[in-house]
Formats: sequence, C-alpha cells, structure tokens
Amino acid sequence: MAGEGITERRSSGDEERGLPGFAGIRTFMRFPHPREEDDLGQVDLAVVGLPFDNGVSHRPGARFGPSAIREVSGFLRTYNPSWDIAPMEHLTGIDLGDSPVVPGNTGKSLLWMEETVERVVDAGIIPLCLGGDHTVSLPVLRAVAAVHGPVGIVHLDSHPDTWDGIYGEKYNHATPFRRAADESLILPEHSIQMGIRGSVGGAEDLITAEQMGFTTLPAERLLQMRPQEVGEEISRVTAGRPFYMSFDVDFLDPAFAPGTGTPEVGGPTSAQCLSYLRSIDFSNLVGLDVVEVLPAHDSSQITALAAANVIYEVICGLAVSRTTG
Amino acid sequence: MAGEGITERRSSGDEERGLPGFAGIRTFMRFPHPREEDDLGQVDLAVVGLPFDNGVSHRPGARFGPSAIREVSGFLRTYNPSWDIAPMEHLTGIDLGDSPVVPGNTGKSLLWMEETVERVVDAGIIPLCLGGDHTVSLPVLRAVAAVHGPVGIVHLDSHPDTWDGIYGEKYNHATPFRRAADESLILPEHSIQMGIRGSVGGAEDLITAEQMGFTTLPAERLLQMRPQEVGEEISRVTAGRPFYMSFDVDFLDPAFAPGTGTPEVGGPTSAQCLSYLRSIDFSNLVGLDVVEVLPAHDSSQITALAAANVIYEVICGLAVSRTTG
Amino acid sequence: MAGEGITERRSSGDEERGLPGFAGIRTFMRFPHPREEDDLGQVDLAVVGLPFDNGVSHRPGARFGPSAIREVSGFLRTYNPSWDIAPMEHLTGIDLGDSPVVPGNTGKSLLWMEETVERVVDAGIIPLCLGGDHTVSLPVLRAVAAVHGPVGIVHLDSHPDTWDGIYGEKYNHATPFRRAADESLILPEHSIQMGIRGSVGGAEDLITAEQMGFTTLPAERLLQMRPQEVGEEISRVTAGRPFYMSFDVDFLDPAFAPGTGTPEVGGPTSAQCLSYLRSIDFSNLVGLDVVEVLPAHDSSQITALAAANVIYEVICGLAVSRTTG
Amino acid sequence: MAGEGITERRSSGDEERGLPGFAGIRTFMRFPHPREEDDLGQVDLAVVGLPFDNGVSHRPGARFGPSAIREVSGFLRTYNPSWDIAPMEHLTGIDLGDSPVVPGNTGKSLLWMEETVERVVDAGIIPLCLGGDHTVSLPVLRAVAAVHGPVGIVHLDSHPDTWDGIYGEKYNHATPFRRAADESLILPEHSIQMGIRGSVGGAEDLITAEQMGFTTLPAERLLQMRPQEVGEEISRVTAGRPFYMSFDVDFLDPAFAPGTGTPEVGGPTSAQCLSYLRSIDFSNLVGLDVVEVLPAHDSSQITALAAANVIYEVICGLAVSRTTG
Amino acid sequence: MAGEGITERRSSGDEERGLPGFAGIRTFMRFPHPREEDDLGQVDLAVVGLPFDNGVSHRPGARFGPSAIREVSGFLRTYNPSWDIAPMEHLTGIDLGDSPVVPGNTGKSLLWMEETVERVVDAGIIPLCLGGDHTVSLPVLRAVAAVHGPVGIVHLDSHPDTWDGIYGEKYNHATPFRRAADESLILPEHSIQMGIRGSVGGAEDLITAEQMGFTTLPAERLLQMRPQEVGEEISRVTAGRPFYMSFDVDFLDPAFAPGTGTPEVGGPTSAQCLSYLRSIDFSNLVGLDVVEVLPAHDSSQITALAAANVIYEVICGLAVSRTTG
Amino acid sequence: MAGEGITERRSSGDEERGLPGFAGIRTFMRFPHPREEDDLGQVDLAVVGLPFDNGVSHRPGARFGPSAIREVSGFLRTYNPSWDIAPMEHLTGIDLGDSPVVPGNTGKSLLWMEETVERVVDAGIIPLCLGGDHTVSLPVLRAVAAVHGPVGIVHLDSHPDTWDGIYGEKYNHATPFRRAADESLILPEHSIQMGIRGSVGGAEDLITAEQMGFTTLPAERLLQMRPQEVGEEISRVTAGRPFYMSFDVDFLDPAFAPGTGTPEVGGPTSAQCLSYLRSIDFSNLVGLDVVEVLPAHDSSQITALAAANVIYEVICGLAVSRTTG
Repeated sequence: MAGEGITERRSSGDEERGLPGFAGIRTFMRFPHPREEDDLGQVDLAVVGLPFDNGVSHRPGARFGPSAIREVSGFLRTYNPSWDIAPMEHLTGIDLGDSPVVPGNTGKSLLWMEETVERVVDAGIIPLCLGGDHTVSLPVLRAVAAVHGPVGIVHLDSHPDTWDGIYGEKYNHATPFRRAADESLILPEHSIQMGIRGSVGGAEDLITAEQMGFTTLPAERLLQMRPQEVGEEISRVTAGRPFYMSFDVDFLDPAFAPGTGTPEVGGPTSAQCLSYLRSIDFSNLVGLDVVEVLPAHDSSQITALAAANVIYEVICGLAVSRTTG
Repeated sequence: MAGEGITERRSSGDEERGLPGFAGIRTFMRFPHPREEDDLGQVDLAVVGLPFDNGVSHRPGARFGPSAIREVSGFLRTYNPSWDIAPMEHLTGIDLGDSPVVPGNTGKSLLWMEETVERVVDAGIIPLCLGGDHTVSLPVLRAVAAVHGPVGIVHLDSHPDTWDGIYGEKYNHATPFRRAADESLILPEHSIQMGIRGSVGGAEDLITAEQMGFTTLPAERLLQMRPQEVGEEISRVTAGRPFYMSFDVDFLDPAFAPGTGTPEVGGPTSAQCLSYLRSIDFSNLVGLDVVEVLPAHDSSQITALAAANVIYEVICGLAVSRTTG
Repeated sequence: MAGEGITERRSSGDEERGLPGFAGIRTFMRFPHPREEDDLGQVDLAVVGLPFDNGVSHRPGARFGPSAIREVSGFLRTYNPSWDIAPMEHLTGIDLGDSPVVPGNTGKSLLWMEETVERVVDAGIIPLCLGGDHTVSLPVLRAVAAVHGPVGIVHLDSHPDTWDGIYGEKYNHATPFRRAADESLILPEHSIQMGIRGSVGGAEDLITAEQMGFTTLPAERLLQMRPQEVGEEISRVTAGRPFYMSFDVDFLDPAFAPGTGTPEVGGPTSAQCLSYLRSIDFSNLVGLDVVEVLPAHDSSQITALAAANVIYEVICGLAVSRTTG
Repeated sequence: MAGEGITERRSSGDEERGLPGFAGIRTFMRFPHPREEDDLGQVDLAVVGLPFDNGVSHRPGARFGPSAIREVSGFLRTYNPSWDIAPMEHLTGIDLGDSPVVPGNTGKSLLWMEETVERVVDAGIIPLCLGGDHTVSLPVLRAVAAVHGPVGIVHLDSHPDTWDGIYGEKYNHATPFRRAADESLILPEHSIQMGIRGSVGGAEDLITAEQMGFTTLPAERLLQMRPQEVGEEISRVTAGRPFYMSFDVDFLDPAFAPGTGTPEVGGPTSAQCLSYLRSIDFSNLVGLDVVEVLPAHDSSQITALAAANVIYEVICGLAVSRTTG
Repeated sequence: MAGEGITERRSSGDEERGLPGFAGIRTFMRFPHPREEDDLGQVDLAVVGLPFDNGVSHRPGARFGPSAIREVSGFLRTYNPSWDIAPMEHLTGIDLGDSPVVPGNTGKSLLWMEETVERVVDAGIIPLCLGGDHTVSLPVLRAVAAVHGPVGIVHLDSHPDTWDGIYGEKYNHATPFRRAADESLILPEHSIQMGIRGSVGGAEDLITAEQMGFTTLPAERLLQMRPQEVGEEISRVTAGRPFYMSFDVDFLDPAFAPGTGTPEVGGPTSAQCLSYLRSIDFSNLVGLDVVEVLPAHDSSQITALAAANVIYEVICGLAVSRTTG
Repeated sequence: MAGEGITERRSSGDEERGLPGFAGIRTFMRFPHPREEDDLGQVDLAVVGLPFDNGVSHRPGARFGPSAIREVSGFLRTYNPSWDIAPMEHLTGIDLGDSPVVPGNTGKSLLWMEETVERVVDAGIIPLCLGGDHTVSLPVLRAVAAVHGPVGIVHLDSHPDTWDGIYGEKYNHATPFRRAADESLILPEHSIQMGIRGSVGGAEDLITAEQMGFTTLPAERLLQMRPQEVGEEISRVTAGRPFYMSFDVDFLDPAFAPGTGTPEVGGPTSAQCLSYLRSIDFSNLVGLDVVEVLPAHDSSQITALAAANVIYEVICGLAVSRTTG
C-alpha cells in the first residue's frame, strides 16, 4: 500500500499534485528545512542530525544514520490510529539538518553538537536528534540541562552506557550517561534503563548504573511485563519530572534492527517496542535521540524504518499530551 | 537438513534419480507447466503468476515476486506435520506460469490478468496467485466473482487497501478492495481484515473499511488473540460463504518479510502467522493471492520463503478440508 | 582521502565549521534548495529530480535514482584538475528537488515533469535532470524545445531508445527519442548516439535510428576511437547547434554501473567515459539528463557515484566554455 | 556500546593496551591457538572448526561458518549477567583451529574430523564444535562416544536429521542422528529434539525419530512452554546421563538466522532461545556443536552472532555447573 | 530500454500479448521445455543445466548457477547486431532443464550428468551446458566424445584445470581436462587455453598443460593480442577439427564476474571477452559449457548476465556458420 | 579451480592432510602467528594489521580491513607464474596480528601502531601492513625512518594525501605524506605518486605535492603509459634509494575496488595494476602498506582479494630481487 509522505494531506493542492513518499529532498517527514540565516521560528519540534560515530568501539558508520532515517521517513503518513491522532495538526516541526562535526575529533564535535542543539532548546523547541553513535546523547543533554536543569532519562538500549571509560577513553558511546551524571545533567533517581542485556566486562559494569541511582529493567524482566506495567514503571520513576528519552536501536533484537554497531541477541520485537512506547506519558518530554542506526549493515532498510517509527510514535505521544494536557 | 522438492516421493523412480530441491526448471513446487495449447485438465489447483507492479506507491519490483517464490518453493516437501497431510496426495495442481501484462499500462494489464485467471476459475480450478503488487487482487476477484458471485474476503495485510484513490488514481495497490466492493465482487459484511497497522492518511482511511462493512482486526488486537480465536472470528465473519484469501507479505513484521514495498513495523512473527493459518477452515476457499514480495530487498530470500510457506499451508488446509469434508 | 562537500572551501567560515561530505540535507552538491514560493533567481544551473520509472520494461526502481545520486554527491569536491577549473566559481546552481509525478500514471507524470522543467528553461537556466528511467527525456525535451526549438542530441547509451513502441505502448523508456523526433523536438541529423550494443528485437530496430537521421557509434566502434576523435565527431554532428545531452548509465559496462535496469555487457569503462566527456565542447549545451540509476541493485553505490561524476564533468565543461567562450 | 573482546579484562596490561573486539587474529573469543606441535594442555574447553559442507542437500557454504563465528565472537565480553558469571574465570579454553577436511570427499572428511575431535576428547577436554553442516555431528559423536560411551542428545533444530538416507546417500546433514543411533553412539531414550517443524517427505520421517526413542518437542509445542518447563523436560529425558548438545541455527526462525542452508519459518525468537538455554543444567555436558551457519546469506552477520552467543551461553552454563557442582 | 524476451517477435500474436522479459517460467531464452516423456525432437540446440558443485575447492554454490542464468536470460533479445543475425531464425532450441545429480556424491552425479547429455548428443543436438562447477566438463566431454570421438578444446578460464588431483581427489573442478586427456576424450594438440593467470601450487602446474599438448595463452599475453589474432590462433590450433568450448566465468576479471568461486584478478573485461568470441569460427563446435556462476556472491546479477551473453554469442556464431557454411 | 592455501605444498604431510584454503585460523597466507611472548625471530617479512579508521573523512569501517584481507588470502597459492617464483621458498614470513589501537583516539593509536611496527623494523624485518585507513602510513613511516632514515615513496592512490589538514585536523587519511615530509621521514624528490584523479578542494591541493617535490603521474597520464615505462619512471625517481610502497585500494577503479571509503571513478583495471606492479624493481623496498579496504561495502570480497593480490605481487617481487640481487 501507499507510502505517501506525511505532509500530503496538509494542503488541498497536494492532493492534486503531491510528491509521493519516494520523491523530494529528504528532510524528516518533509518538515521544512530553515536556511542558515533564518530564525528557527515558533515551532514545537526540531529534528537535528548528529552524524558523529567517532565514539564507537566496534562497527563504525552511524554517521550515515541521519540520512538513512530521513530517507525512509517517506514511509510515514499523517495519521496514527494507535494514538488516534494526526500529530502535525497539533504540532509544528522543522528539520534543521545536521550539526557540523569534525571527523576524528571528539572534543570539537561534542562542542559543536552541543551548540547546535542549544540553539534549539534555547528557542523552546523540543529537539528530536538523529544519531550518530550513542556519544551524541552527552552534548544533547548538556544543551537540555542548560535550559531545563538536570532531567530524568528514559533509556531504551541493550547496554547501560554508564561505563567510566573504555580503552582509557572517557567520551564515547559507552559512557554518555556516566558523564551526564558526573556533570549533573541528569537525575539518576528519576532515570530508568530498559532492555539491558548481553555480556559485559564484569558484574560491576551493571552495578554501576544501579549505584548511580538508575532503575534498570533488564531485557529478561522487561519481556515478562505487560506494556501497561512498563508505562507505569516509567511514570513511577520519572515522577512527573522533565525527562529525556534516549533510544538506541540495539534495544530491538538484531532481527528487527540488524543495521547497528553492537547488536545483542535476545531483545524485544518491534511490536513489543511499539507497545511500550504507546504506554508512556510524554507530557514531560524535553528531548529525544534515536541512535546507532548503521546503514551499511541495513540491507533492507528495516533498522532505519524502525528508527523513523520510534520518532513518529514519540511525536504522536507528544501531540496527544498537548491535546489532553 | 534436506530441501528436497516436494515431488520426489511421488514416484519410486524419483528416489533413484530425483531432482534435488535446488535443481530443475522453476515451477511452483514442481507442479507441471501446461503448454500454451494444452487444456488445463481436471486439476484442483493452478498457480498463476501476476508479475505486475505498476500499482505501487513506493518501492517497485514485485514483478519479480512470482519468480522468487517459485525459486524457493524447492524448500517445500511432501508432508506437513502440522496438518498431518501430504496435500498432493489429495489434490492435483499445475503451474500456469505468468499472465501477460503490459509494463506501464495498468488498464490492459488488469484485463489480461483477469482473462488469465478467468480461464482457471471457469475450469473449476482454484487459482493460487503470485503477485505482483496488491493491485492484482482486483482482476483475480473479477474472475472469481464472475463464476462464484460476490465472495467474502479473508485479508491479511498491514494496510486496508480500501482507499478510493491515491494521487488521484483509482487502480493501484491501495484500492483493490474498494474497487472490488464498488463492483460488487465481494461481500464486505462477510469479509475480515487482519494485521492492519501503521500510519495512514487520516482517521477516515480506516473508517472507510468499517463503513464498507469489513470486520477489522488491527495488529494490536490480533496479537492479543489466541490462534483459535482468530480462526473462530474468521468463521464467524465468513459464515460459510465462499471466501477468497488475500495475503500481503507486509502482514508480517519487516524482520520476517524485509523484501516488500511498504513495510510496517509492529507485525506478527512467522510463527504467529502459521498459527493463524492453521486455525482457518479452508473448505470454502475459492482463490488465493500472496502479494508484494519484492526480491530486490530480500537479500536472504526469507520473504519469498515465507510467501511460499503461506501458499503451502493454504494448500494443506484445502487438502484437509477435502479429506474431512 | 577526503570526501568533503564541494561548497566547503567557498567561505572561510566553512573551514572552521564546515559540514563534512557525509552530513547535511542531501541536495546535489549542496546546491541551495529554493522554497516552493521562491523565484528561481538568476542562476545558471538547476538540478531537477524526475523520480519516474513507470516506463521501464524490465527492472523498476529508478524512481529512487535522484535520491541516490544526491546522497553520493557528497563525494564531489570543488576543483576538477582535468578541466583545471573550480566550476562553481564561474556558475551558480540550485537544486529544485523532485518534480511531482503520479505513480502508475505515465500521461500525468509526463505533463508534470514537463511543467517542472519548463519553469527552469523559461528562466534561462540549464536543467540538469536526475532520472528516473529514460522516459523522462521526452518531457525534458518538450520543455527545452519550447524555448530553444528543436535541438541536437548527444546520447550516450547502450540502447538507441528509438523504438516506436513496446508491448504496444508508445511512451516509455524505449521510445523517448522516437517521440521526440515525431514531435520535432530534436534535429536527428545533428544528433549522435554512442555506446549502442547488445541484442535487439530485430535489425530494423537499429536501422530506425539511422533512417531517422541519427549518427550512431556502436560500442564496438566507439571503443576503438581515441577520445579526441569522439569529441571531434560530436562537434561535426552537432555542428554548432544547441544540443541536449542524455546519459543512460547503462552506457557504462555493468561492472562500472551494476545498478541499472537493463544492463548490457561489453561497454566502456569509467575511465573511457570520462575521457569522452572531457573531449566535448559544451558551449552549446542546453540541458542534460542522467538516467536509469537503480539503487536497489547498486550495493556499493558505484553506479550513483558514476552518475554524479558525469554531471560534475558536464558542469565543469560548461564552466570552461563560459570562461573561454 | 562497547564490543571489546572477552579477554581484555584478564590482565591489567590489557586495560592499558588491549586489542579492541574488532582487532586481532580471529580465534573464538580470543582463546589461544596452540601450535600444531604443542600439547593441548590442561584446559577445559577446545573450540574446533569443522568446515565441511559436503553433506548439504540445498544451499552449500557452511564451510565458511567457523570463520564467520570467530569473526563476530569479538562482540562477546567477559561477564554474563544472566548467569551471573565471568565464565573464563572458572574455565580455560583453547581454539584448535579447523580440522582438515577434503572438499568433495565425505568419507575421508568424516575420518579426519573424528580424529581431530578425538584428540580433544581423549585429553579430557570438552569440544565446542563450529560447523559446517549438520553431518559433522556424526564424527564428533564418534569421538565422544569412544571416550564416554553412548550419550544422550539435546538437539535444537527445525529438522530431526534422523533420515536413513537422502537421494540414496547415507552420510549427510539429514542423517547424523540415525547413523549415530545405528552405531550406538547415542542413547535415544535419553535424547530430546526440540524446535522440529516444517514440511518433510512423509509422516514416517517424523515417526522414525520417535520410534528410535527420541523425545520430540515440535516447535508448535515448544513455543507454548515456559522456559522452566523446557529445562525440566530436558532434565527428565537426559536423566543425569552425560549428554551432547547439537544446535542447528535453523532452530531459530529465519528472521533471527537468515544465514543458513535450509531455513524453516515458524521458529523461536532469539530471546526465547536464550531463555531455553538458561533453563538447562549443563553439569553433564560432554560436547557441543553449533552448525549450519551460512555466511553468504548472512548479510548483517546476525546468524553468526546468534551462533556465537549460543556457544557463550553454553560455556556460561558449564562454568556455573563447575562453581555449584 | 526494453528487455523483452527473445521469442517475442517470433509470432505476430506475441506482439499483441507477449510476456515481458521479466515474466514467465524461466527456461533459457524461453526455449521450450520438453516433458520427461517427450522425444527431444529435431532441434539444433539443447540447454542442459548441470547443478553440481561438489567439486569446488573453495566457495561452493554454483549448483544455483543454472537457475541464475535462466533468470537473467530474459534480458536477451532476438537480433544480435554484432553478428548481424537473429539466431533463432536459423536454429531451433530446447531447454531440457537440469540433469539429476546427487548432492555429495561425485561419482553418481558424474554418471547421471553424462547420461543426460548423452541423450542430447546422441540425438545430434549441440549441448549448451549451464554449470555447476568446472567438474561438469568431464561428463559432458564423455558424452561428446562417445559420439564425436576425441575433440579439441577451446577453454577460456583463469585456471588450466589440468591438475592430476587436489587434496588427493581425482574428480573435481581442478582436474576435468586432465581426466579428459587421460580418457582420450580430447585432442590436447588441438586444444587451447586462454586467460590463464593467478598463483598456482607450483611451476609444474602450468607446465603440465603444455606437456599434455595444450596451447596456452596466459592472460598477460592474451590482453596484448588483437581479437582477430585470437580468432586466428584458435583456428590454427583447432585446425578444422570438431571442438568443444568450455567457458569458466572466472576468465573475466572479478569486476565483471564477481559471482564465482575462485576469482582471479587481472582478467579481461566483458568488452574484450565479446571481441574474442566474435573472432571465432564456430562451424565445428560440438558443445559448450559455461560454468562457475555463483549467485550468492552476485549481488547485481552481472555474472549471470555475462554468462547468458556468452551463450548467446556462441549461438549467434553457430547460426552464422550455418548460414554461411 | 582450486583455492588451496599457499602453504599446502610446503610439507609432504600437507598433501595428505592439508587444510583447504577456506579452513583454518586466518593469518595472512597462513604465515605463523608468533605468540606475544615470542621473539620475532629471523624472518624476512612480517604482516601487521593496523585496524585504525579514525582518520577517515567519509565512509568509516576500514578497521575491518585486516580481517577481510586475511580471510581472502586463502585464495593465494604457492607459485606466481608471472614472476616465475614460489616466493616463500626464498623468504620467510610471520603474521604478527593487529596492532593495538584506541578507537576514537588518534594520538594514542598512532603511537601504538608506530611501536608495533618499530619492533618489526628494528628486527630487520620488512613490514607488510594491512590498513586501516591511510592515516596508518604515518606511524609506519616513523618506524621505518627511525631505522632507515628518510625514504622514497612509491604511492599508488587516487588522492595525493598531502593536505596540510582537513576540517582543521592534522592527523588523518588526507595528510600522512605531508606529515611525513614535515617530519623528514621521506624524500619527496625520490617519491612518486600515481593514479591521482578526481576532484579536490582547489588547484593548490595538487600543486602542494609537486611543490613538496613529489613526482606525480595522474591517472589520465598513467593510463596512457606502457607498464615498462611506469617501472622505468619509478626507478628513475627512486634512484636506487630505499623506498616504501603505499597502496590505497582506491587507486583501482571502483568497479575493481568497490569496498573502499572514498572511491574515485576513472581508475586503472586490476590487470593494469598488476602490470605496473610487475614492472617494479623491489630490491630496495623497506616496507609496504595496503590500505582503505572497507569490507562493509565489498559484497563480493573483490576489493579484499585485490588487496591480497597486491601484497602477494610485492612479496614475489621481493623474492625475485633476492634471487637475482
């Protein structure tokens, strides 16, 4: 069936002469792309690409993630029956394009990504960030915390990413939430990690996150919970605080997200994932990232498609919270 | 283990000198391919390829679907333990090859596909159609209804395909069941759609199918039902009427059917799919299509394999209904 | 080595904070993308995507060609040593995005593509068109001829595309130059086809092009000519008339352009292709298309890369003609 | 997150200068590779590659399985939270490399593989074998039984592999457990097969295994059991006897293991598979094989990754049994 | 351009309602497929698939070669301008399908393949054989020599395939021409090998072929010859004797034939290959094989396409020899 | 034909029981892999993997290059007819495995790679380095120059890699030869670059290399030279000095090396490349690197195969120089 782009129905002219979903300059869901010199304007959402993969410890290539997610976002359409909402009737959005980064230079890239996102958050806009590897959560959180103060984290991933370092390095995709805690960007006691699984360097690797104060739902436990319980647990932990959602596509089982850098078997299906997302109250969401899409290993684009859908679900959840809030 | 072709055991000579499953001219399950000038004969089943993909709104290429399904049908074997039957001991089948179509000309292609299938239905043979995109259901239904009158539909898909048009076009893979209803080929009140999910153009897109009289089991609901309940619901809706089954491989989650044109995350697994099929009473089946296999995105052939298995399950269901009917 | 985008060096600020070639919203070579409501302005070149593949007779999917070419255009850089020019110091360009098309409806798509390109040609801008299948040459030529009158054609392809019809259809990727001749859009006696090879339906298929007045250089002859001879032959045929260049990527041998719909073995290498392009005087070029890139069969993106380079070479040739003209 | 190799944490020097998971000569989990002339030493485990695929009846290529599994074993890390153990703190292991085989000569290959594994078993070491096609279980069982006498089998597969022959051949991937029973290498009454599904040549194909004394859990039944029940059933059948585990990756659904030679739809997910493995008491394990990984159809390496994880889980189960035994 | 199947133009009805090149049961070039019980009839050519790859020493999978070649033969069309002939106006052909083989059993497979081809040669028909690995040349030569007596060989390959054995085995893809000489099936002094290159086990490996009497044109020498010289050298060697052509796709450089089991860099292009084929006088051809197409490594089908074109060129050469002979 | 590993023929036992080319722990050409604690011994050659890709400006992933090259080195065999030598009868070699590197940390990685190679050069062994991206040439040259003093460079590449920086960064794959000149590691006047082509940031980018004193043979010029001329030009430039060879696989046209990070159309074929290598006098070679193999884009492994063959040719050239020197 049809993969017409989401914006088709918005103007009557489009019905006559709309661009099909496979056509047009690729912005996320055809959100307008402001020019460098433009103000960001009064919008609710800003998609920001963070094409950085200098922080990976295994397979690189997530720098092409933003492009891949935008490419398949042409599959998304106006109305989401599960939330019973056409989100862009309630929200406005732009696609800022990608942040500048410096290949091979983590420090400068972190700084530039932070500045890019800060401009968004400063304008009162919710950033929807396309990774890039998981390192990018740190600069986004710096930008978010600069405005909102420390926030809770709802973190879907197979890895806790709370290592203190790896190979002696402090800033990479294994450490963003440790750094964020060190820098008081987040509220560990109002943070939850779900989907954690797979082997790690030692028992202490997982204890760390708990010692830091995170609530953890390992995959084995998560898969035995009903979606509603998941939503309730998230609400319990975030406790009405502003929270940031970080979604690593390796949260999904490799069958559903083969195109990623450090896949871990034994994860949720895409149907389970959607059911969790639909159980969440997004009223207090202050930002989102979806990271670790690696197109070179995603031969059928299903990983990018899953990522695009996660963002879409979050947008729908936000729209619902606006209409009901 | 062995992937020997299904016909091996049929003659003792084959044991001595059979063709392995990877060998031979590719007809579906090695059904004989009648020559142009031959009568169809007194057979129960006729596989018909409908290599048409002019109706797709996103990724094209399903015109190669029939060839891909035939290629992997060499994996199928004689006896299905789940149904406890060796179906071709009870049924006879041929593979007619592909219908002529005109690349780029929907009207003429629809006509030719209808004529091809009509020859089958007229001969009292059940057509098992290999798509092609979902547009092909319309000419098949025209052929079926010409003989059987309007029929119920058992429709497994992530999309309802009941749009009135897309980009102003009336005949394509988004509209077959609307056209079929308009032309009184089907009985909406005896029709059921299952697996529907994903974003659509608007709330009205889904309401349409319901207003037309279809029973709808969205994926979210379907995934909470037991297989037996699914079978019962189908029986309740079809109510003993002749019914036609239309299976779009995007009914399956993209992990199980990556090779398709408009994948939607959040679908059933192949195990769930088999359990639904095995819950169905096929006594009144008058035709089948399996559509939207797109080999260019099916790097490991698992989508084509799923499609071949769906057809095989239906054949087994038919055989069982013959032995018990 | 570096694949930094072509625009990086243009402003000093970019050196400090430029977007790497893998980053940013994908327009061709980062040409600015005017908004719908903007004037096209006073530019020299306009890239136009024509995502139409309804006219293919074998493998479809070239509708994704424009996106794939834009994606890899990030490999192109500012200065071309072979022409000794940094073309965008002499020319200005925009990327208009894609023309609207109607999937499955050739007639309406032809009309819309013509209108899209006409807007460009009317503004005195040279259109650089990204196919799409070869059908798209027809609407572009209609737009070009409406302003320039009938033009010569420099056509690089393995097929003459001068059939009168295929499967009874008149408008598809086998017929654009026949239709163009029928409609007096081109000057066959000032037109040349090079690279023609492979089997055809009959001897008359090739005679047709010659009878129409085209000069033909079959691949076998072309491969024995020195590049300079090729350039001279083109100059002889075009004779100083305005000419349009149409480049089908199946001009290249399948090893160099595997991602295409009707590959023909026995073609030129990419090095030979570049040498031919560099022998051409582009002073009188009025338009270009590069067609038949099929990303689903282009696993390493080398076909899209070849296509992007062809466009870049033509731009350089144009720039040189402006500086020397 | 990090894919650092499992041995990193073992010496403090590694923290300073460890090889990342993507680096180094590929042995399984970086186990040391003894030289030809070395004694095997006093170790617990020996990985042995059996690159034989002469016994396949459909898609060949599993001879590259050992290499592919070793390649992705760099994703495994020291500590397994699900078993709460860092297994290599309790066990020692080597990677012997691959057994010699003769391409095209089944008889000689069987002999050489047996000799290779016999050297391991004779030294009191548990062999962990990387297939190769399922034929390889036979020589391994010969080696195992030579030391341990007949053993029980815990067999995870979609096929029973108890045929008497296929195409008249007695030694191939359809027959290893029939041959093993014929040769009194196994104890059928203490053997269990789980995951069996898909079509077979006839009802008698499945009855055979039962007549031989195997307990069978077809996939349909297995998928309705809780993991604990599975573990209990295995314990009941093996009854404290030494047992050998044979894991064919086509036990998993094709979505989770696309890279295999005879995939069967309708299998378990990787999460279900892990839950079964974690329910098993490995105290009496005398050997393991993981077979039928076919890298040429495993574009994202997820099949090899699943295989590597299965081995890792078994190693963890063994380590736990040592610490608690 | 059009990929209509070669038979379209043969009957006027086809113009009206022909099957496009992508449609229909896959026989080679749509040659009719006789039923098992049919006489072969009075035809000139018979395509025979030999899906055997038990003889490979490295990557297996060429058993799927016949299917892959037939699949892409839909790209071939009626008339070949380079030979100026529509070959099937002068010749008739059938596609016999595939020979039975026994996976894993070389001896029995050799016997059955010989019998299959013998039936063809006995009927006075030229066999056009689709490999399979190069082992298959032996049974074909046995069948050919049984009728024609010993024949000359025109062998295009990167390897001489005249080893006496490999890993102690006598019958595999490294030995067919040694065995053929041992069995007096060929006339080494009227045989020529061209394209030989790459490393071998020792200097004696190449000397062998020369000692046996073969004329050898290593790739380095071949690439410096003009096509006409190649044709003359072949004529000189074959000296008017009946000859058999054996074409291993690894004759081509890996860029042009990536889908093969033992690729060797430094080979001819497809354009060079065609020029050689077109220099040959095929009057005395008694049989052909095209071997070592390995679809699992042929992601864009260009290897299969090259193979199909080689066969087509040979058919054209035969047709020309009939019209001029 | 056979892909038996190169070491098979070395001991008579191997004939009986050799490992086929597809088997065994992957070291390059089965060179022995010394243990960490071993002396390097008295060998001529040491293969060293440098799995570093932190310096790429476009597609990353060359960290998997060493593994991919080792994997396909099983295709290489003992004797090279073009050089008429079995090189390992004259030379001895080891495969040291991979250097430690720190993902994301260029500085530390450069240091560690230098130390790894230094150990080799210090022992009087010629390092044969497997990249990794082109950055790795710098640490290798540091190690080489520490022993040999400044050396000439024979550099085959499509890019000069003599930029002063990119995005403000000094140490990456665009700068190694500039840094090497700055650090007086090389003798620019005795250095030659060949194959340079494609667009660059500005005319000055190419002038730089010439100003530094390099001799440059752009691809366009190179492709018009006879191999012997190339060899003579290299001899003229290197003038009997010790020289280092650096081979970037993007020297080859993308058709021959699709698996690389910054492909440039218009390059040499693999046959041309071999002819150049065979024209070179390797007597004074002090080291080699082959870089920029990117397996994730090398679906048929032909890029890795080309890389393995380049190394093999150099080894043969060295062996010849030893026997004739």
